[in-house]
Amino acid sequence: MVVVMEERATESQIEQVVARLVEMGMDVHRSTGVTRTVLGAVGQGQPDAGLIEMLDGVHEVLRISEPYKLASRTFKPDDTTVTIGEVRIGGDEVIVMAGPCSAENESQVRSAAAAVRRAGAKIFRGGAFKPRSSPYSFQGLGEEGLRLLRDASNAENMKLVSEVMDISQIEVIDKYCDIFQVGARNMQNFTLLRELGHVRKPVLLKRGISATIEEWLLSAEYVLSGGNTEVILCERGIRTFETATRNTLDLSAIPFVKKLSHLPIVVDPSHATGRRDKVAPMARAAVAAGADGLLIEVHCDPDHALSDGAQSMFPSQFDRLMAELRIIAPAIGRSICLEPVARRGWGS
Amino acid sequence: MVVVMEERATESQIEQVVARLVEMGMDVHRSTGVTRTVLGAVGQGQPDAGLIEMLDGVHEVLRISEPYKLASRTFKPDDTTVTIGEVRIGGDEVIVMAGPCSAENESQVRSAAAAVRRAGAKIFRGGAFKPRSSPYSFQGLGEEGLRLLRDASNAENMKLVSEVMDISQIEVIDKYCDIFQVGARNMQNFTLLRELGHVRKPVLLKRGISATIEEWLLSAEYVLSGGNTEVILCERGIRTFETATRNTLDLSAIPFVKKLSHLPIVVDPSHATGRRDKVAPMARAAVAAGADGLLIEVHCDPDHALSDGAQSMFPSQFDRLMAELRIIAPAIGRSICLEPVARRGWGS
Amino acid sequence: MVVVMEERATESQIEQVVARLVEMGMDVHRSTGVTRTVLGAVGQGQPDAGLIEMLDGVHEVLRISEPYKLASRTFKPDDTTVTIGEVRIGGDEVIVMAGPCSAENESQVRSAAAAVRRAGAKIFRGGAFKPRSSPYSFQGLGEEGLRLLRDASNAENMKLVSEVMDISQIEVIDKYCDIFQVGARNMQNFTLLRELGHVRKPVLLKRGISATIEEWLLSAEYVLSGGNTEVILCERGIRTFETATRNTLDLSAIPFVKKLSHLPIVVDPSHATGRRDKVAPMARAAVAAGADGLLIEVHCDPDHALSDGAQSMFPSQFDRLMAELRIIAPAIGRSICLEPVARRGWGS
Amino acid sequence: MVVVMEERATESQIEQVVARLVEMGMDVHRSTGVTRTVLGAVGQGQPDAGLIEMLDGVHEVLRISEPYKLASRTFKPDDTTVTIGEVRIGGDEVIVMAGPCSAENESQVRSAAAAVRRAGAKIFRGGAFKPRSSPYSFQGLGEEGLRLLRDASNAENMKLVSEVMDISQIEVIDKYCDIFQVGARNMQNFTLLRELGHVRKPVLLKRGISATIEEWLLSAEYVLSGGNTEVILCERGIRTFETATRNTLDLSAIPFVKKLSHLPIVVDPSHATGRRDKVAPMARAAVAAGADGLLIEVHCDPDHALSDGAQSMFPSQFDRLMAELRIIAPAIGRSICLEPVARRGWGS
Repeated sequence: MVVVMEERATESQIEQVVARLVEMGMDVHRSTGVTRTVLGAVGQGQPDAGLIEMLDGVHEVLRISEPYKLASRTFKPDDTTVTIGEVRIGGDEVIVMAGPCSAENESQVRSAAAAVRRAGAKIFRGGAFKPRSSPYSFQGLGEEGLRLLRDASNAENMKLVSEVMDISQIEVIDKYCDIFQVGARNMQNFTLLRELGHVRKPVLLKRGISATIEEWLLSAEYVLSGGNTEVILCERGIRTFETATRNTLDLSAIPFVKKLSHLPIVVDPSHATGRRDKVAPMARAAVAAGADGLLIEVHCDPDHALSDGAQSMFPSQFDRLMAELRIIAPAIGRSICLEPVARRGWGS
Repeated sequence: MVVVMEERATESQIEQVVARLVEMGMDVHRSTGVTRTVLGAVGQGQPDAGLIEMLDGVHEVLRISEPYKLASRTFKPDDTTVTIGEVRIGGDEVIVMAGPCSAENESQVRSAAAAVRRAGAKIFRGGAFKPRSSPYSFQGLGEEGLRLLRDASNAENMKLVSEVMDISQIEVIDKYCDIFQVGARNMQNFTLLRELGHVRKPVLLKRGISATIEEWLLSAEYVLSGGNTEVILCERGIRTFETATRNTLDLSAIPFVKKLSHLPIVVDPSHATGRRDKVAPMARAAVAAGADGLLIEVHCDPDHALSDGAQSMFPSQFDRLMAELRIIAPAIGRSICLEPVARRGWGS
Repeated sequence: MVVVMEERATESQIEQVVARLVEMGMDVHRSTGVTRTVLGAVGQGQPDAGLIEMLDGVHEVLRISEPYKLASRTFKPDDTTVTIGEVRIGGDEVIVMAGPCSAENESQVRSAAAAVRRAGAKIFRGGAFKPRSSPYSFQGLGEEGLRLLRDASNAENMKLVSEVMDISQIEVIDKYCDIFQVGARNMQNFTLLRELGHVRKPVLLKRGISATIEEWLLSAEYVLSGGNTEVILCERGIRTFETATRNTLDLSAIPFVKKLSHLPIVVDPSHATGRRDKVAPMARAAVAAGADGLLIEVHCDPDHALSDGAQSMFPSQFDRLMAELRIIAPAIGRSICLEPVARRGWGS
Repeated sequence: MVVVMEERATESQIEQVVARLVEMGMDVHRSTGVTRTVLGAVGQGQPDAGLIEMLDGVHEVLRISEPYKLASRTFKPDDTTVTIGEVRIGGDEVIVMAGPCSAENESQVRSAAAAVRRAGAKIFRGGAFKPRSSPYSFQGLGEEGLRLLRDASNAENMKLVSEVMDISQIEVIDKYCDIFQVGARNMQNFTLLRELGHVRKPVLLKRGISATIEEWLLSAEYVLSGGNTEVILCERGIRTFETATRNTLDLSAIPFVKKLSHLPIVVDPSHATGRRDKVAPMARAAVAAGADGLLIEVHCDPDHALSDGAQSMFPSQFDRLMAELRIIAPAIGRSICLEPVARRGWGS
């Protein structure tokens, strides 16, 4: 914490501030300039800047950022790579996670899995518990949905990510999935984050729609401090005054996060834009900006999807996007599943 | 839903849109103007506007707002009054809820309760489970804190409101408190809201820092639709680009909510401003704008509070604020606990 | 400027930063803590923080705020009062400026002036040059409008404020008006501000819809640094994600500005809310929060106004608001034109 | 305009709304549904939605967007290409405009021009009149700066773009430049825009930091409606709550603008991010998202630049960026000056 005194601050005011900081357990270093005195305070603990700011003679208190520790690059200079079997997130390959918004029935899940696998996705995504802002909307299939998603992932040799909304769902999701997804609305559900610090599977942590990058990394810290070192950050758009787009995808978060933290970061262009014709441009931009992966909604019949149909791509659009991404990735020294993999199982 | 066709839309495009709306279960009314055709679609369910927006020939889709029902003034034209014993929130009297951020120990809780009661507060506030953005901050006393808060409330003849962060805490909070507070970060924790729809005590629902008024009312709808009709809304500041203030207190939400909904609305100026010298101006403004109550942090020794000290008022500041509010309230035909009430119990 | 070094910064990195700061003409004070080194840099000029931030070993650069000088309370501790004849803005009396959005014709201007004067307004407002976001909207009457506004002000013994949009309009507005209004869109039109630094009449400077308080005070500094010491700040709402209200009136700006600056601050609730039924609650709140005055749109036939009809109050609503404000003002030790003044001239 | 009546609206309320709309010159189409009546109103002029919204029985008024005409794709379905000699903006080639923030002296301008030309830039950028938020900052060299920029552009066979801040500068800028740049702060300086509608050179219109896409297109309309059909839009970041980045570059604006308008759109990643190490990722992302061009600050000695040094790239960084862009552009069927062009003149 750095305390900037007013130009007219008296010696006794300065001494009072120093005394208060020492009382809070801080070491204080004083710089007396021609116009101002500046006090640098360091120590354990997180003293309340507001209390100092209100003392007489104080011009302002500047907080040294980065209250997170384990999530910071200072703590761990090298990139973290999250490994799930043969899939590595945060390495040279840009990993694409794709699938429907919600599991609706077996054939819908199976056809989506086959389509995204064929195009090069390595992780299947799909929801079983849906957080809907209206209590009157479709709320998901629950465990039955998880079972359908798992079966389809197995058939296509993909890993599976699905959203956990509450600590009561951790056990059942753990049974079926490879990655726990924490939605934007739960980014500061600290009870849930703390619990996910104790699971032994990666956590994909979406940024809250009004969360700063610092708050997002602090939420990652909750998981990391519980002992779970595998956190994947996911940018999905922030809320701004612009109403033409659903949310404003903050791609500049990618280079900023890369500088501040060692954790991998992926981007979800489907939720940010809310319209399938805007997903491809934003997916391409995310990869060009350095994202470690993408999370994309794909549905074989999006016009009849039970949720998020408007933002779900047709398989043919997804195929084309993947081809475009294969051209872009080398510009930043990366690759995207160069050979569409042979699928396994289901009907074979 | 109103579908505005492009000026150049062809007859066959229009027919296709109509067919799609009918397939979605809507009744469609068509208005053919000189320049454009406009389609009005009404019906049960909530068709996905995005799907229609992407059809050929569609200029834009205008959504008719108010997907909430029970929370709307259309559903219930008269103001809702939440009654807890002799305290009525939403009536002629402006109700002040005050107390410390967190329960720290018995004497701190007791002195705060005595101080706010003397000045005219009718409801005691205090936290036992604290949602902190850093995992390394003070997290609250838990049930022991609730017990201290309850004892002090009883001693001072006040009602008690305290925050619930997770469904696992509902039972213990129900044992000690009169009102369940849902914090800003949990405004869209639908699992929690749904469960609070089944309790038989009022719920004070804080607005999320980036929640629109419509989303806030939809969250209230989750509680109401579970059968709990006693929801109190609480404005506590929204996140904007301004960094001088912690959050921007949106007082215009008061007249807007009053027009859209029948639910009472109170204001928390402490969290919005984050600085005790800014609390009084905003508290006065809230009452002048028509708020049904206030939620204010008061601490007898805020400089040594374990949390939120900078925004906690000294009892003397709170006394003065209450006196100012007693002048303002009549301007809008209301009162504020005109006679400081005689306290009961504790030492008497 | 305060430079916070990384925990792992080497001695040679620190020395390089010091050298660079000295080269920029700064005096540097070094505090070596257990975990970090912090460098305080003071001096004339405004070195580019970004350049330092990119040097090796630098964790972050904290900028000491308040690059404005003349506008700050440090420079002038006492409140500035702007005096125009017998009207004093920034004193004990809350000054109300009211009138139509635009001058449309003589009878409209005259009737509005009479109505607002009767209720207690001391300054008449009205536009002759209108900044409209669409090139196809009504653009104002120009000089003829100014003449109508001046005649009505004289008839009712009021001062006159009107908007200047461009340096080419300064001369004609100076001929008719007592106060130059700078609109929100021109808050950073530095060419205009610089020129207004040389006029000898007060400038009412509206806050830009996305301007921080610091930027607003810097814009005031442009006027002050030209030699014009009479600047009145006007809060009129900022742009946020909320769409229910037109803009979000930031009333917390009042106590913040009062702390940072000596300049008077008034509030325009008409443009912030955009709806006449929301103007009164926000006007009351502004006075309760400590505003030095109000700027309110009133029209005798708002339903047929050529601009801003929806936000213009009826005279009867304005009368009632003034009565409410007379109750509220004493709560903060102020008054509002206690006796509705006898009007002069025009028909008498 | 579409008027949605309340569910309980009476027949007489509906008739009153219809009468008012007709009085405003609108044709009204009425749809009577089971639960609600919806009125579609079309006609010339732009009736004030707020006035209708306040009538009894009205639930809400939905405004049909696109008050701009000439800027819309409805008016002109084909892409506009802005041609300056052999340079075409909006065609298959992505056009890069680069150069220093400000012209400082001859050698600085010449070296920057040579460097960006060598790497493939076709348009030179540089400021002579600087809009600075503080009156105490460097304000530019004025006409002398323009002369230096023009000479360097000629020597390197590049076109020149420079910022115009006020109508008084139009004449001198017209004498030296090929494109008039309108800065973000002037996006709603309607006096300036109107005047630029009469010049016969392209206008590069930056988006205001809090402007919606609709407002931006309306500002373009001001220029277009004056007869100047050559407007180039420039996204340069919007203001959000995030403070880690200077502004949030809204790349989703690219596909949205492309759908709504026929005008070309370029991106300025330098001002959006404010840090040179963030420019390359955002520039790559912009091209991947479909931008028609880039506007980038490059300086041969950015550490000693008189303005914006922190966001100016070194020539070597710019070279590398151009190489990356040449890989990305083909992914969307475009090219970027494939062969670094031979430079002309200056020393040859």
